Amino acid sequence: MNNYKTKIRTVPDYPAQGIMFRDVTTLMSDPGAFSNAIGDLCRPFENMNISKVAGIDARGFILGGAMALKLGAGFLPLRKPGKLPYKTWSEPYELEYGSDALHMHTDGVSEGENVLLVDDLIATGGTAEAGVKLLRRGKADIVAAAFLVDLPEIGGSRRLRELGIDVMSLVTFTGH
Amino acid sequence: MNNYKTKIRTVPDYPAQGIMFRDVTTLMSDPGAFSNAIGDLCRPFENMNISKVAGIDARGFILGGAMALKLGAGFLPLRKPGKLPYKTWSEPYELEYGSDALHMHTDGVSEGENVLLVDDLIATGGTAEAGVKLLRRGKADIVAAAFLVDLPEIGGSRRLRELGIDVMSLVTFTGH
Repeated sequence: MNNYKTKIRTVPDYPAQGIMFRDVTTLMSDPGAFSNAIGDLCRPFENMNISKVAGIDARGFILGGAMALKLGAGFLPLRKPGKLPYKTWSEPYELEYGSDALHMHTDGVSEGENVLLVDDLIATGGTAEAGVKLLRRGKADIVAAAFLVDLPEIGGSRRLRELGIDVMSLVTFTGH
Repeated sequence: MNNYKTKIRTVPDYPAQGIMFRDVTTLMSDPGAFSNAIGDLCRPFENMNISKVAGIDARGFILGGAMALKLGAGFLPLRKPGKLPYKTWSEPYELEYGSDALHMHTDGVSEGENVLLVDDLIATGGTAEAGVKLLRRGKADIVAAAFLVDLPEIGGSRRLRELGIDVMSLVTFTGH
């Protein structure tokens, strides 16, 4: 039995009134909890020949870098616009107000390689869906998407499953 | 003998004319090079009781997450403004045009704990110096600052050493 949930700080009314922000920095700052979480996130994929972990800018980089090391894989950054220096593909996604985009280097993945998509938290799933589209443009095989935290009532994990993606998470928050 | 330098892609004229951008994503995407680099970056600190790795937003998160796992430490994010949900301290730093700031949660470090500061590359050292100031506000003991790439002619590593910080890097680029 893990105690990840007790290690995550909830900050009320951030970034806007009425939102309960799940702050994973408190979990990551705890050596035992961080190491255990990386182990638990990687365990289902240890014998699945993952050649790349794709982390979403920026908290997905923290988990993704550690998971790439643990799985003996390379790391692929999926980034906000203007951050990657080489040729990129771009996929837009919706925000509450307006939109943004996620970029990937066009040589970031090879056809048929096994990629694990990683972020700290899935809420609406918009960013993760943009990541799925980018990896599919590169013809990668997306083995799964892994998150520390799932907010299932917001629907992102269901949205990813409807795209044919296996989704796993360590912690679920429901209600308010 | 490592071949890290050959794994780093140079993108000319990015982000501006005349700049040779050192793109570490190609090294990170190579499983062997990534794993070896994390091992080499951690080796000097393996018996130094590092309790936290402080990574600089955002590429420092990739290395820092993996190094925290390797060293059995926690991870502390040093972030751009508006990204950390709890109370923060802020330290400004100069950019070529204008300025920016780095933030740290005020409970990010404890007095006297051993912290390793990490980023992918040191150029002017402005961001790293802001990181040093934040960690010192928290009264942490900064064991060293570790970078994948040093551009020593730009002076950042010298600047950090003048602040009393031990600096290490795996790769040095000089000239153009």
